[in-house]
Amino acid sequence: MFKTKLLIGTVLLAASLGTMAAEWQALPGKAPEPADNPTTPAKVELGKMLYHDTRLSANGVLSCNSCHNVMNGGEDNRSGSIGVKDQRGGRSAPTVWNSAFNSVQFWDGRAPSLEAQAKGPVTNPIEMGMKSWDDVVARLKAMPGYQAAFTAAFGPDSISADNAAKAIAAYERTLITPNSPYDKYVGGDKSALTEQQARGMQTFADVGCVSCHSGPAFNGPTLPEGTGFYQKFPANDNGALEAMYNFSADLGRQAETKNAADAHLFKVPTLRNIALTAPYFHNGKVQNLEDAVKIMAKLQLNKDLTAEQSADIVAFLNGLTGEFPKIEMPRLPAYANKAFPAE
Amino acid sequence: MFKTKLLIGTVLLAASLGTMAAEWQALPGKAPEPADNPTTPAKVELGKMLYHDTRLSANGVLSCNSCHNVMNGGEDNRSGSIGVKDQRGGRSAPTVWNSAFNSVQFWDGRAPSLEAQAKGPVTNPIEMGMKSWDDVVARLKAMPGYQAAFTAAFGPDSISADNAAKAIAAYERTLITPNSPYDKYVGGDKSALTEQQARGMQTFADVGCVSCHSGPAFNGPTLPEGTGFYQKFPANDNGALEAMYNFSADLGRQAETKNAADAHLFKVPTLRNIALTAPYFHNGKVQNLEDAVKIMAKLQLNKDLTAEQSADIVAFLNGLTGEFPKIEMPRLPAYANKAFPAE
Ligand code: HEC
Ligand code: HEC
Ligand code: HEC
Ligand code: HEC
Ligand SMILES: [Ca+2]
Ligand SMILES: [Ca+2]
Ligand SMILES: [Ca+2]
Ligand SMILES: [Mg+2]
Repeated sequence: MFKTKLLIGTVLLAASLGTMAAEWQALPGKAPEPADNPTTPAKVELGKMLYHDTRLSANGVLSCNSCHNVMNGGEDNRSGSIGVKDQRGGRSAPTVWNSAFNSVQFWDGRAPSLEAQAKGPVTNPIEMGMKSWDDVVARLKAMPGYQAAFTAAFGPDSISADNAAKAIAAYERTLITPNSPYDKYVGGDKSALTEQQARGMQTFADVGCVSCHSGPAFNGPTLPEGTGFYQKFPANDNGALEAMYNFSADLGRQAETKNAADAHLFKVPTLRNIALTAPYFHNGKVQNLEDAVKIMAKLQLNKDLTAEQSADIVAFLNGLTGEFPKIEMPRLPAYANKAFPAE
Repeated sequence: MFKTKLLIGTVLLAASLGTMAAEWQALPGKAPEPADNPTTPAKVELGKMLYHDTRLSANGVLSCNSCHNVMNGGEDNRSGSIGVKDQRGGRSAPTVWNSAFNSVQFWDGRAPSLEAQAKGPVTNPIEMGMKSWDDVVARLKAMPGYQAAFTAAFGPDSISADNAAKAIAAYERTLITPNSPYDKYVGGDKSALTEQQARGMQTFADVGCVSCHSGPAFNGPTLPEGTGFYQKFPANDNGALEAMYNFSADLGRQAETKNAADAHLFKVPTLRNIALTAPYFHNGKVQNLEDAVKIMAKLQLNKDLTAEQSADIVAFLNGLTGEFPKIEMPRLPAYANKAFPAE
């Protein structure tokens, strides 16, 4: 199984090196939607309320937005996120921007969809810390404003964990950032990238980054939802880098599947808006993009980039910062006539 | 001094009881602005960024909005707010909605303006916990996006505590909620309040609530910025209520002035959007509006309201929930190429 996966990676590498020019893809203006959860305005509005509502956490301090700040790069610029009671998690929060273009969610791909993912953090004891979804549902039911918003999205008496997750996923599918300089360039506007950025784009292809970071979101080939594109990280042993950054401490997908063949497999992450989401890698141990690029070349491709090559690639990656849609703040329902219970 | 203040209160009481009808005032559509900080779009935009930016707190988790949620009633529905490291404060957070209509800020009025107030929480060790404003300024200066936003608002090289406070205050002056059912009623639309609400409005006047809660924001007469309208709370002793709610534990204005004459003086707070801001009073010990109304009548006016009277007043107070302006989320500057420092 592990072999097959590595093989897929290798095949793609060969293919992409051959047909570079044809493969550059702009980000679609719309994210794919699953058949059983079509995006509607009412769902998006409800999802936005839930996503930004701190009352989905035990102490009422954290919302999804606390760790995935959509006013910014869609995460928290930390190596480990801060959950309820100041607890730290062991992995760095990935950006929620364009997560709709991931075919699986989490660094290890353990959630097959945004819907499946959205139920996790709320009851994770070191994230939002609710005892159960029943408790969340009870809180939501106590607010007439949520009754109304769920009714608009899903029909009467529809407050449930599943529908909350569907609504959050629908909101997330609106969180996409098209029209980066790269997208404009690919669309034909050759002035959208600087000379250095265009050179970096070619280097990104030539050295082999595209063998993994292909597709419109630079997270691999477009696969059906639930099918992950995983790669071993680090792919090559390097004692010095391991001593500095400890990448191998995390078993990656194996921790989930308990399958030794999955050791250190990680989902290939998107590189969109990567300039905004320092620090880098699953453990957030690398502070800046220059270092991240050099480390990738060394550990994944066994190459030492020249200073010019890595500077050019970094310039190119800066061209992947897209246009962020304007978002109106949701109006949150009143917790009427009593104090918030988590006191 | 204490005597004079009580006297002012008494004079107003007599006056207002005489000329009730003339005194009902709608909320102006625009908040007053101080001469030295006129509101401009660039300041409002910058102020919105700062207000919603958790990087103004030591651990990067709390923004002004954490305790004064503008997606909701403008506070946190808690008796004591939760600051950095899960610390609790001793007073309940007042709403930021319509705070621009307060002539002084804080329960004890110790800040003479929104500008003066805005500098406090950031370095308050149990609120946002920054060591100094110098540290905040250093963080802001590290972000080119803030350089640009300050330049747009105040000219080049203008990042400072004073300008940050001015911008936040300018944003707060946009946080006003006109066009409540009450405002429409006062404007001539007699169908805007229900019969019960209109009756409650009359009762609110007749029993004497308006002697303190007068003016367009129901927080007393319009006074120059910096001049507070204070009242003793509790005004009448009541052992049973004191045993239940401990209102006298807080010395109010005396804690600030060290003047015995200021013991238990509190600013008369606004009643706008009061239905959204449970729990009530400076210590947030009272859960619901019915109880708050009865307690006010007893402690401030030495009256026992009938069940009908208090229900009518509550209905009226529900008519003070205004229209909340739509607010677009700010885009926050990137903390580029490094992890957030507070790790
Ligand atoms: C306390 C911090 C925290 C909170 C709160 C939080 N997350 Fe996350 N989120 C993380 C971390 C850390 C990961 C990565 C965990 C992993 O891969 O094992 C993650 C992963 C994700 C992913 C996967 C993205 C990807 O590219 O794989 C999505 C989507 C997501 N979160 C959405 C949400 C939503 C929706 C909520 C609220 C319901 C939420 N998060 C609340 C920290 C948080
Ligand atoms: C063999 C597959 C593979 C190749 C080749 C590859 N990457 Fe990666 N890349 C990954 C995987 C897997 C991760 C996630 C590693 C982790 O943190 O667990 C990753 C992570 C990254 C990250 C950090 C993303 C984040 O959000 O923290 C950057 C930046 C990056 N790659 C850039 C590059 C560049 C530039 C190249 C070429 C020099 C490259 N990659 C080549 C598989 C690859
Ligand atoms: C940790 C919670 C917390 C944070 C963070 C916080 N506040 Fe407050 N705020 C309070 C509390 C509690 C009070 C009342 C304190 C008192 O009266 O002594 C208050 C009072 C105020 C008032 C006075 C309102 C009135 O009616 O008197 C304003 C205005 C205000 N805060 C704005 C802000 C701004 C602006 C920020 C960010 C720069 C901020 N607050 C951050 C809890 C907080
Ligand atoms: C003599 C002055 C005075 C009178 C009369 C008065 N109030 Fe108040 N009111 C205050 C003061 C001062 C406070 C703030 C008390 C505190 O929490 O420290 C207050 C607080 C309140 C609150 C809670 C506000 C909040 O945000 O927690 C409500 C509700 C209220 N008053 C309603 C009424 C009603 C209804 C009446 C008439 C039955 C009334 N008041 C009469 C002075 C007065
Ligand atoms: Ca990151
Ligand atoms: Ca003022
Ligand atoms: Ca309150
Ligand atoms: Mg998907």
